[in-house]
Amino acid sequence: MNAIDRRKAILLALSAPFASYAARALGEQPQAPQHTMPTLTPEQAKVHWMGDEQIGMLMYPGMTVMDLIGPQSMFGSLMGAKIFLVAKTLDPVTSDAGVTITPTATFDTCPRDLTVLFTPGGTDGTLAAAKDPATLAFLIDRGSRAKYITSVCSGSLILGAAGLLKGYKATSHWSVRHVLSGFGAIPTDARVVHDRNRVTGAGVTAGLDMGLTMVGILRDPVYAECCQLMSEYDPNPPFNSGSLRTAPEVVRTSMIELLAPFVKQSEALATRRG
Amino acid sequence: MNAIDRRKAILLALSAPFASYAARALGEQPQAPQHTMPTLTPEQAKVHWMGDEQIGMLMYPGMTVMDLIGPQSMFGSLMGAKIFLVAKTLDPVTSDAGVTITPTATFDTCPRDLTVLFTPGGTDGTLAAAKDPATLAFLIDRGSRAKYITSVCSGSLILGAAGLLKGYKATSHWSVRHVLSGFGAIPTDARVVHDRNRVTGAGVTAGLDMGLTMVGILRDPVYAECCQLMSEYDPNPPFNSGSLRTAPEVVRTSMIELLAPFVKQSEALATRRG
Repeated sequence: MNAIDRRKAILLALSAPFASYAARALGEQPQAPQHTMPTLTPEQAKVHWMGDEQIGMLMYPGMTVMDLIGPQSMFGSLMGAKIFLVAKTLDPVTSDAGVTITPTATFDTCPRDLTVLFTPGGTDGTLAAAKDPATLAFLIDRGSRAKYITSVCSGSLILGAAGLLKGYKATSHWSVRHVLSGFGAIPTDARVVHDRNRVTGAGVTAGLDMGLTMVGILRDPVYAECCQLMSEYDPNPPFNSGSLRTAPEVVRTSMIELLAPFVKQSEALATRRG
Repeated sequence: MNAIDRRKAILLALSAPFASYAARALGEQPQAPQHTMPTLTPEQAKVHWMGDEQIGMLMYPGMTVMDLIGPQSMFGSLMGAKIFLVAKTLDPVTSDAGVTITPTATFDTCPRDLTVLFTPGGTDGTLAAAKDPATLAFLIDRGSRAKYITSVCSGSLILGAAGLLKGYKATSHWSVRHVLSGFGAIPTDARVVHDRNRVTGAGVTAGLDMGLTMVGILRDPVYAECCQLMSEYDPNPPFNSGSLRTAPEVVRTSMIELLAPFVKQSEALATRRG
C-alpha cells in the first residue's frame, strides 16, 4: 500500500478506543498529513492492523468486575473486532462489589463461532456459575469451536467445571490454583499461562497481562505495544505485596485465613466435577 | 481487643470483595479457629480496619471504563466505605469502548461531604464533560469539601477545567500532561502524583496504582498490602512499551500522531479555561 493508505491503516488500527479522533485526523487532513509517517520495516508492515475477531466475555452475578474490564480494556483496542458481553439474559448484571453492567448478548444470541471465549472470576458468584447448567452448556458449546479459551482469576474454575481445561496447563487466583488439578488441569504458577489454545491469567489484575498477551497473539507484538502505550501500562505498585512470594507474613497469613472457606468450597466443586 | 475479636476485625476488614466468605468463616468457627491468628505488632494493630469513607466516582458518556474500574477495584476493598457511581441521571452510562454501567447516584443525590472525589478520563467524552456546566458545578461543589480530590488519565483535565488543580502538582495521560499547565496546575511526570489533598494518576492502567495509593492513605500500608495480595497485583506486562521512555520509535510516533487531534482540542480547552 502507498504511504497515505498505510498511514490510514495504522491510525484506524490503533484507534478503537479513540475512534472519533482517528476519524477526525483522517478527515481533516487526508491529503496533507502534518506528521511524517514512520517508516515500517517489512516485518512491521505485516502487522494485522484490521481484524474481525469475535470475542465473547461471560458475565454473571457476583463476578469481580476488574477481572472483566482488565482484558476488555485490551481487547477494546482490536480494530475491527467485536466484543460481546454475554449473560444468561439481557438484564443488567451486578458484580461482587456492586458495579452493574448491561450485557450485549445472551447465551442464545452470542455468535456460535468465537475467536476468544473469556471467563472472569470472583468467589460466591463464581462457584454458583460453575454449578449452573445453562452457563456450563454455553461454555461447552462455544468452547468446542472457539479459537482461544481464556480466563482471569478464579474464572478458570468455571472453565474447569465445564471440562475445558483437562490436560492443559492453567493458572488461577493464587488461593485456588491448586484446585485446578481436580478438573484434570495442570496448575502452573505464572502470571499468564499459554498452553496451546488455552490462555489463563492469575488473580484479578493479571487480566491486563492476559489481555495484552492475547492482543499480541491475535495481531502482532507491535500492535500490542501500541495498545500498551495507549493504556500507559507501565505499572508501578506503591507496595510490594502482590504475591505470596513478596507479601509480609501478617498479610499472607491473614489473606490465607480469609480465603480458607472459599478454597474449601472450590476444592469440593473440583472433587465433584473432576 | 482479645485474640478472637482481633481475628474477627481483620477478617471483616479484608473482606469487602469476599464478604459472604468472611461472614461464613466467622459464623462457622468463631470459637475454635483452625488457623492461628497472626501476631500483630503494636503498629500493625493500629491499622484502621473499619472506616466510613464516602467515595464519589464520576461517570459520563464516553469515559474510559478501565479508568473507573481500576481505582474502584481498590476502593471496593475498603471495609465500611460507601462507593457512589455518580452521573447526571440514573440512566446507564456507556463508555468509549461500549461498556454500559448503571450509576448509583446523581449529582443531586450524591452525598455532599465526600472523603474522595474521583474523575475518570477518556477523549471525546472527557472534553465534553469538561465543558458541561452541570458536571463542573458538581465537581466544584463537592470538591470544595472533599477530603481528597483524585483522577486517572485525562480525568485531570476535567478537574482542571473545574479549577480544582490551580497551584497543584498533577499528572494525566502522557499525551496531555503538559496541557495541565493551562489550568494553572504543575504538570508532573510520575505514575501517581500526590500534592496535599490532590492525588492524580497517569494514563488508564495507572488507576490501579492510584487506587492502591489511596487505600494506603485512607487506612494504612498493611491494609493496602492486603488489598494488593487479594487482587494479586504483581504486574508482569508481556511487552515493555508502557511509556514514551521505553516504547520503540514506530510505536511512539504512531501513537503521538494518532492522539494529535485530541491533544490539540485539550490545549484549546485549557486555553479557554486557564
